[in-house]
Amino acid sequence: MSRILFDIEGAKPISIECNPGDNLLELARRANVAIDAPCSGNGSCGKCRVRITEGEVESFKSRHITDEEWDLGWRLSCNSKVIGDATVFVPDIASAYQSRMKTADLSTGKEVAIFEEMQANLKAAGVDFCNEFMALDLVMAEPTLDDTMPDVERLEWAVKAEVEVEFVKIPFAVMAKLASTLREHNFHVCVKGRCSGDTFHCMDICAPEDTALVGCAIDIGTTTVSMVLVDMTTGKILAKGSSGNGQIRYGADVINRIIEQGRSGGRKKLQDAIVKETLNPIIANLCKSIGLNARSIVQLCIAANTTMNHLLLGVDAQSVRMEPYIPSFFGWEGLLAGDLHLPAHPLAPVRIAPNIGSYVGGDITAGTLASLIWDKDEMSLFIDLGTNGELVFGNRDFLMSCACSAGPAFEGGDISCGMRATDGAIEACTVDCATMEPSYEIVGDEGQRPVGICGSGIIDIISELFRCAIINARGQFVREGRRVRRDAHGMGRFVLAFEEESETGREISINEVDIDNFIRAKGAIFSAIETLLNSVDMTVECIDHVYVAGGIGSGINMKNAVNIGMLPDVELEKFSYIGNSSLTGAYAMCVSDRANEKCAEVMANMTYLELSTYPGYMDSFVAACFLPHTDSSLFPSCVQEG
Amino acid sequence: MSRILFDIEGAKPISIECNPGDNLLELARRANVAIDAPCSGNGSCGKCRVRITEGEVESFKSRHITDEEWDLGWRLSCNSKVIGDATVFVPDIASAYQSRMKTADLSTGKEVAIFEEMQANLKAAGVDFCNEFMALDLVMAEPTLDDTMPDVERLEWAVKAEVEVEFVKIPFAVMAKLASTLREHNFHVCVKGRCSGDTFHCMDICAPEDTALVGCAIDIGTTTVSMVLVDMTTGKILAKGSSGNGQIRYGADVINRIIEQGRSGGRKKLQDAIVKETLNPIIANLCKSIGLNARSIVQLCIAANTTMNHLLLGVDAQSVRMEPYIPSFFGWEGLLAGDLHLPAHPLAPVRIAPNIGSYVGGDITAGTLASLIWDKDEMSLFIDLGTNGELVFGNRDFLMSCACSAGPAFEGGDISCGMRATDGAIEACTVDCATMEPSYEIVGDEGQRPVGICGSGIIDIISELFRCAIINARGQFVREGRRVRRDAHGMGRFVLAFEEESETGREISINEVDIDNFIRAKGAIFSAIETLLNSVDMTVECIDHVYVAGGIGSGINMKNAVNIGMLPDVELEKFSYIGNSSLTGAYAMCVSDRANEKCAEVMANMTYLELSTYPGYMDSFVAACFLPHTDSSLFPSCVQEG
Repeated sequence: MSRILFDIEGAKPISIECNPGDNLLELARRANVAIDAPCSGNGSCGKCRVRITEGEVESFKSRHITDEEWDLGWRLSCNSKVIGDATVFVPDIASAYQSRMKTADLSTGKEVAIFEEMQANLKAAGVDFCNEFMALDLVMAEPTLDDTMPDVERLEWAVKAEVEVEFVKIPFAVMAKLASTLREHNFHVCVKGRCSGDTFHCMDICAPEDTALVGCAIDIGTTTVSMVLVDMTTGKILAKGSSGNGQIRYGADVINRIIEQGRSGGRKKLQDAIVKETLNPIIANLCKSIGLNARSIVQLCIAANTTMNHLLLGVDAQSVRMEPYIPSFFGWEGLLAGDLHLPAHPLAPVRIAPNIGSYVGGDITAGTLASLIWDKDEMSLFIDLGTNGELVFGNRDFLMSCACSAGPAFEGGDISCGMRATDGAIEACTVDCATMEPSYEIVGDEGQRPVGICGSGIIDIISELFRCAIINARGQFVREGRRVRRDAHGMGRFVLAFEEESETGREISINEVDIDNFIRAKGAIFSAIETLLNSVDMTVECIDHVYVAGGIGSGINMKNAVNIGMLPDVELEKFSYIGNSSLTGAYAMCVSDRANEKCAEVMANMTYLELSTYPGYMDSFVAACFLPHTDSSLFPSCVQEG
Repeated sequence: MSRILFDIEGAKPISIECNPGDNLLELARRANVAIDAPCSGNGSCGKCRVRITEGEVESFKSRHITDEEWDLGWRLSCNSKVIGDATVFVPDIASAYQSRMKTADLSTGKEVAIFEEMQANLKAAGVDFCNEFMALDLVMAEPTLDDTMPDVERLEWAVKAEVEVEFVKIPFAVMAKLASTLREHNFHVCVKGRCSGDTFHCMDICAPEDTALVGCAIDIGTTTVSMVLVDMTTGKILAKGSSGNGQIRYGADVINRIIEQGRSGGRKKLQDAIVKETLNPIIANLCKSIGLNARSIVQLCIAANTTMNHLLLGVDAQSVRMEPYIPSFFGWEGLLAGDLHLPAHPLAPVRIAPNIGSYVGGDITAGTLASLIWDKDEMSLFIDLGTNGELVFGNRDFLMSCACSAGPAFEGGDISCGMRATDGAIEACTVDCATMEPSYEIVGDEGQRPVGICGSGIIDIISELFRCAIINARGQFVREGRRVRRDAHGMGRFVLAFEEESETGREISINEVDIDNFIRAKGAIFSAIETLLNSVDMTVECIDHVYVAGGIGSGINMKNAVNIGMLPDVELEKFSYIGNSSLTGAYAMCVSDRANEKCAEVMANMTYLELSTYPGYMDSFVAACFLPHTDSSLFPSCVQEG
């Protein structure tokens, strides 16, 4: 028997008994210690680093740990095993995520402008932004010996005097405080509720001045979660925020999380990670930031991929990854905020944008809704770049969709200096072919120094390195220079900012492993596009418009994305960047009943193509894992200098 | 500062700091120590007795404590105050109630026969016993690559193949376990739910053999609570039980409890006393007794008086007792078992029989429903004898109702040797006028010795004592003999069983205070009848039928009840005893949707007369506080011998 003491940054230490030979990462999970392990323990991501401060463990050396770090006791927990008592320092995963993620969505004017333009387009397409919520200002007569109507009837009459309904439904929560609230406010109250058909459904009875009706639109991504609070009456955005998805410590991709939720107690653990550890703190923070009582949130809408939807509800998600690959549900209505103990009115309905397949979920139906491709004659391609890449192709007559596993590269994951598009992120870059000196744009105020690289920056850098022939078609460094460095194993990297140039004092660079990861990601996207078009007997020429969505930054340099063979080589004016369309769609479905109906229609008209079993997809993927492609005739406009 | 240690029978002792001068009963309540105090601390009931085992308190001597008891340290806590440290023995109130109450309702064949006859009459009157609950046996195909329907749709199709509905609603609780339950049982499951109009509302998804659909009908009286579990499909009674209402320690009558709930935290306290301390244990016990999972309870129905209904829901009940005397609600639909955390399916609807006034509640509307007086041409008088006496008079054209405060005498409360009609209760009695020797019938098996006297027994004894001129019209003892005893203060009593004759070794007798309490109770009833008839310009002669309800025993000797001036002096064949009609009504409303509708109709046609403000009622009451009445011409058949 040995004893491991986990010394957790910013939290109480946890001690656990174990046997020599036990894997340190698994032990941490058993002890409920959160360690960031997006690759789920296979040694590839290098994120599960801990530091041994007393005693020893037995570990393999990894390329993710430098010699200096090794000497300081840093190890990857996934490839370490217990050999005796030890004290293990665990960096705080939550604060790491918070500082890395911050408020990524709608944090720039550009993003807000895109968001607002899309809402305007939806309205122009006939999706009116109305909902059934009301806050009624009710002034009633106080009961007397001559007016002996009980409170319940008195309220019903007052409601019926305001809205034309036949029935008034009073739930227990309102009933229990009706008598006291009426008397406390001398029979002048605000009643919040929903007017549906012939019935007014009361939700709350409040002081007359408490009239807020707030909606909460949420985009739950595999990696990040974004949210806006919105005034249900005016549609005005009241607050916005985002953070990492707390489930990340159970695996960076959905497959690892599905495996994890299948273990004993796993469903509860994964559900808690998204609800208690992720959504609840964001909602609470947003409410606090605008001085809002969370009970004023009367409607929520969630756009999430199929697996995230299952994990959110605590529904067994095994069927998503096991043959015959069918989720437990596409659409389902009936969730209330109280069912998940979300900090909102417990009776607030939670709309879930419907899934259409195991790997095309509500985030895509919501995003497709927002893109308006279902309202056009022209053929459009909609691409959502997240941890998975999802595609929808078609027009008002038909819609085809598929998904490919791109990994977290587009969101800055799987990239050594990757980060979300927040302050300090290099979001755009050019390289001088002669001097190999880079110039870049950084998110943030004037004078902001670089912290890392976000998705759009990575596309630019790789495109520029390739254009300048600093890397070859396989992503290997082929030129030498001041900014091209190699480590002891010979692995090349390009330094964007030397230690003294960065905000953090750490070098910001992109290495061959990063580039390889990214090439696989872009290869997955392009081959998916090719296969999807193929499945309807079409080619790249048929595309009239390409909508690119995703939290990839405040925009993508489409030319560069074409240059590296990620997006099809069509005229640049056919491309539009539409930001986080999933959040845009969730917002629309939250405040607009019509948008919600429309999303269900869009979903009903969409066909799902399961790529993994589609003949030819794997060959197409392998061919696409080059810059720009093994078949360069597909990318006539791609140029290489030098 | 002093310290009182409450040494509670059958529970952990509780110690509390206090100041000299503190009232011992109030101190006990502050310390959350349950002491039986039906009179709410005014010294009249004598039930709050405790025994000082160490130290001393300062108390008044009370007629409720004998000299021997005084010497042993027995005191009334309500008239004791702290003078220093002391240890106070507190008899266990719960076990006292349980032993005193046991299963009082439907415990005898006679009661069951009445109950069943009334259900048969309801059916004969066109109230069919149908409800919307169903347990569907669903066998679905397992998903394959060629049959990729998600679980939600698969279930919807399976339900629609069984019942003709357009929509299937799946609540969160079912959604969350749908995927795992289907797979655990190889897609053969039982789905329980309600079929309402075009929609099937799922409530639960279970193993295929778990098909139980159980209803729970509850009569919540001020003093006692009775309950039956019933098979929702066959209407068969599965289990039955009763116990004291745990609120009794906050006052025997509704007024004291309303005052108590008005104090800080009072609503929660009173609600917990009925829900957590009373209903939950009974339901749990009944379920255990028949090996039933409480989740199988899919429907509940509660018949209770107006105050009990308010306290149950935690609704402020002040308006019931304050001018203009209007309750917060008459009828209200929308309660679910989960709202009160009752041990039942959380989505099980809880029907509450509607109130019609502050003092005529759902117990009376349910009882009136069961009595069928609303279905007849003849004029009927319905009397429910409980802690309050409630009356309804009328026929199919009109119904008038009123209530009077009778106190708990009819249920054996307020009477020194009173008890419910359980084993050992003297339920009928005659007295030989010459020898003054009593003969009595005792509830229970052959050879059962007497334990106390239940309501029907008290009526008989007082009637017989008066007939034999042992007591006078004021209830005072006027003959001497072996069985007539007097205490040191000269208070007379009639001994029914000497110490050696009783089951408990304690004398069973009825004293002048008991008789006086009872005369006030019967006086309240008679004057209410008189006033109610008066209000519609009718007299006793107009009555075609009298239905007497209440948990007063397995029957009442109507002749004796007339003899003492409690019931009007009409032909004996006009009387029917209909048992606990409130529970009978609740049972009907639980299993029959039609009965539930009918009760709402009955309620809508009933007029409520507020007796307390009705001119002449007080005079009538005073006149009725005699045996049989100050105006003996009202009781021509009353005879007195000796």
